[in-house]
Amino acid sequence: MPVLLDLDRAPALSELLKAIPGGLVQKIVPGSDAFADPAIAGLGSLTSAGPSEISFAVHTKYLPQISLARACAVIVLPEIDEQIAASDPVPPYARVVCKHPYLLYARLAQWFEWARQPARAAAVHPTAVIDPTAQIAPSVSVGPYAVIGARTRIDAMTQIGAGTIIGADVEIGASSNIHARVTIYDRVHIGARALILSGAVLGADGFGFAPDPSIARGAWGRIPQFGSVVIGNDVEIGANTTVDRGALEDTVLEDGVKLDNQIMIGHNCRIGAHTAAAACVGVAGSTTIGARCTLGGAAMLSGHLVIGDDVHISGGTAVTYNISKPGRYTGVFPSTEHSEWQRNAAVVSQLAALRKRLRVLERG
Amino acid sequence: MPVLLDLDRAPALSELLKAIPGGLVQKIVPGSDAFADPAIAGLGSLTSAGPSEISFAVHTKYLPQISLARACAVIVLPEIDEQIAASDPVPPYARVVCKHPYLLYARLAQWFEWARQPARAAAVHPTAVIDPTAQIAPSVSVGPYAVIGARTRIDAMTQIGAGTIIGADVEIGASSNIHARVTIYDRVHIGARALILSGAVLGADGFGFAPDPSIARGAWGRIPQFGSVVIGNDVEIGANTTVDRGALEDTVLEDGVKLDNQIMIGHNCRIGAHTAAAACVGVAGSTTIGARCTLGGAAMLSGHLVIGDDVHISGGTAVTYNISKPGRYTGVFPSTEHSEWQRNAAVVSQLAALRKRLRVLERG
Amino acid sequence: MPVLLDLDRAPALSELLKAIPGGLVQKIVPGSDAFADPAIAGLGSLTSAGPSEISFAVHTKYLPQISLARACAVIVLPEIDEQIAASDPVPPYARVVCKHPYLLYARLAQWFEWARQPARAAAVHPTAVIDPTAQIAPSVSVGPYAVIGARTRIDAMTQIGAGTIIGADVEIGASSNIHARVTIYDRVHIGARALILSGAVLGADGFGFAPDPSIARGAWGRIPQFGSVVIGNDVEIGANTTVDRGALEDTVLEDGVKLDNQIMIGHNCRIGAHTAAAACVGVAGSTTIGARCTLGGAAMLSGHLVIGDDVHISGGTAVTYNISKPGRYTGVFPSTEHSEWQRNAAVVSQLAALRKRLRVLERG
Repeated sequence: MPVLLDLDRAPALSELLKAIPGGLVQKIVPGSDAFADPAIAGLGSLTSAGPSEISFAVHTKYLPQISLARACAVIVLPEIDEQIAASDPVPPYARVVCKHPYLLYARLAQWFEWARQPARAAAVHPTAVIDPTAQIAPSVSVGPYAVIGARTRIDAMTQIGAGTIIGADVEIGASSNIHARVTIYDRVHIGARALILSGAVLGADGFGFAPDPSIARGAWGRIPQFGSVVIGNDVEIGANTTVDRGALEDTVLEDGVKLDNQIMIGHNCRIGAHTAAAACVGVAGSTTIGARCTLGGAAMLSGHLVIGDDVHISGGTAVTYNISKPGRYTGVFPSTEHSEWQRNAAVVSQLAALRKRLRVLERG
Repeated sequence: MPVLLDLDRAPALSELLKAIPGGLVQKIVPGSDAFADPAIAGLGSLTSAGPSEISFAVHTKYLPQISLARACAVIVLPEIDEQIAASDPVPPYARVVCKHPYLLYARLAQWFEWARQPARAAAVHPTAVIDPTAQIAPSVSVGPYAVIGARTRIDAMTQIGAGTIIGADVEIGASSNIHARVTIYDRVHIGARALILSGAVLGADGFGFAPDPSIARGAWGRIPQFGSVVIGNDVEIGANTTVDRGALEDTVLEDGVKLDNQIMIGHNCRIGAHTAAAACVGVAGSTTIGARCTLGGAAMLSGHLVIGDDVHISGGTAVTYNISKPGRYTGVFPSTEHSEWQRNAAVVSQLAALRKRLRVLERG
Repeated sequence: MPVLLDLDRAPALSELLKAIPGGLVQKIVPGSDAFADPAIAGLGSLTSAGPSEISFAVHTKYLPQISLARACAVIVLPEIDEQIAASDPVPPYARVVCKHPYLLYARLAQWFEWARQPARAAAVHPTAVIDPTAQIAPSVSVGPYAVIGARTRIDAMTQIGAGTIIGADVEIGASSNIHARVTIYDRVHIGARALILSGAVLGADGFGFAPDPSIARGAWGRIPQFGSVVIGNDVEIGANTTVDRGALEDTVLEDGVKLDNQIMIGHNCRIGAHTAAAACVGVAGSTTIGARCTLGGAAMLSGHLVIGDDVHISGGTAVTYNISKPGRYTGVFPSTEHSEWQRNAAVVSQLAALRKRLRVLERG
């Protein structure tokens, strides 16, 4: 589970692996009998894959499950393969030996996704409202009730989902997939192979105000946001995530950035290449994050920070200062049973006093 | 306030209570004069309800307000009723004695909601784009600019709001209410009596990537998400909440789950029956939560956890480990005036050292 | 960068300043040669503005950049102006002396935004579905696939974006700008000059349930939400922000409230005039916040609190108690390198015990 192709369309294991780029496979060990070169109809976890599916084991700690797997083939690390080969009886499935089983699994899954895709005629739904000055490549598909503004350019093979609203002077690169109900404001630029999930809002006005006492005591005057959002290639943006446009310069997401759902990127931020953020992360305005960083779920970064390359922020952590040194950074109040938390939290507000008392004792 | 029905449609108290299921009412004590069996045109809080409305008191601490209430009837606990009966003068309103006043109030409110509902012809708006293979029960209503995909099945009495986009092979049970501007991706299954608020996104791709150095140093390769989202009966999902589809298996919300707004449920999660989460909660992928749990606002659960039944997580708490024991769990940094926080937070980073110094002193 | 107007439409500095209300300018010091009264085609930061743009310096700490600015004019504080006048050589740009440079910059930006706006005929797109009983002022514009319900009233000059869904009995004041893909539920009232960004959901049902064991053990019965949302003048609401309708009374946002993206305001809350909240803030139900407060990003307020005027909550802070005294309040676990956090966090769960041990020592 899940079976992904009907058995009559399922490729033999050897054929399937030939279709996967990257030279990832070290060795194929044929299974016994029907599993010598089995037809692969889908993918599954070690415990759920059935006899027409391939599974994978990324760590030796899964050895107990591996021995019980009912899959017709299993992707294994070389060190796991040795242990399986030495076991008695040797399990009947074929073994695909590979140093990066998770990556091979990802590639196989991508192949199945491609193979399952229904033949789809590039088509613009008759209800789509497209400005006559927009440039839509002939292979682009546009869903019902999508709206595309003046002078917007959408490149080959890109798909625009139903109810998606795209402003004027937008550019979207080739082979991108903009799902249903996305908003892309004027002048946003998106590279090739983007994946934008439903509810995402790209290029809304940044949050910029100047105190304006001429309106009323404490009132705020709006600062128009003239910048835009510039997004590189291979970027993915999750459902209901928002990326605001810059005030004067642009907000930038570099190549390969991956943003999960419900993330907020403030105006003028720059997120470095291949940085990935889990859901519910917030990055306040004008913060720069380096390349290859990871931000755990609900991490929060203050504004105007500079975070270097290869920095990893744990989930739930608030970062309020610049970080230049690669590494992992954390700041989370440990959760415990409530009564225990109450006892300990009460002391948190006395820590400075406690330290003083300790000093007094130390001085004797 | 608010008056919910015109007075000529307002039922007498005795009639109204007969229409409420559940045997909740212990006793009705008639009010004086016009309030003997008053017409009930609406509901209100103790301080705001006027003489054509019913109010309720859930706790003896509200006794001061109860004596001043201008409502024509008040739902009271038995112990409150005794005190009111013994007071001099006895207030003029009718008293509905009930051990669960809040539940009775909820039932009355549900009755008024039903009574206020305008007669609504089941109708599919002519602008809705419905695939010819979709199965839409005759009593279903579909709003303007809704889109419904191939082979999708929508059961009797269900309402689909304007601008809602529903994919292919979706199933939605009877008497559900899908508000405007919701996205439901392909193959999502939803039970009966669901309530899905605007902006919710169900079944977007989970966030799954494998490191893929063949693309670039630090780059991520996408893992297609073949699972779906399976939602039980009586589930409510708040505005702009997102529930991602599973990678291989499904993401599951069991019967009676209630999710507030802006919640994120990651791929492969399972949320147990009658578990309720307040707004802004995040649950990372593959975490299982038991039945009858509550998650306070902005609580955050790490991925791959197992949380048992009857566990209550306080708002703002990050949970990073399994919890099997029922009870309340908390982890929040206590907030104080900023200068005090600065003094105490500075010590937090020295706690390990402080403990050492204490040990040294203890050893004399 | 960014140049905002073609040079042939760019006003001379002296003309431009005459168009700005408020008497903010103290003095204009002409620049040398071509910068005597230069044409202003746009705005930029000190480091990015080119010779057809005006820049601004809000603090003396920017003096190094000011001396290098290539802008044709710079807005400066009086004390900065004196230093520049005394420098040798005096930079060539014109200087606009002003005690509130940031506010003047905001006003200039507003002027450019207005000047850039394309001439736009008020028009209702033919695909908009507008109930015949709705009252839409003639100067209102409505985008494609917008839906407007019965008896809704939209005042002069207001713009409704594409795909926006507005319920019945809604009121929206004059000169408001409701962007694309917004949901406004029935009976919500919005004042004049509102700005509502894409994906916002106003007036969804509040999250209200009563335990209802008659359904199942631990089950929840829904409490209908009869209140609405009432929004004053000059309010801004960010992308994907949600403001829930009240249970019995209304949820209220007073004049001049500014909400960033992905904020959640629970039912029955009241937010005071000119209070501003940064992104990802959550305010639980029935909490009242005073005037002129600021809430930092991802701050979280529990329900049923009363927060006074002029209270400032730091980002990432959870507030669980009433605050009446103006000032800044904070509660954030300081983040450090992960290993250091591990050492210190381990002590957090022993703080109460630690305090006891300290007492023992103190007693000798």
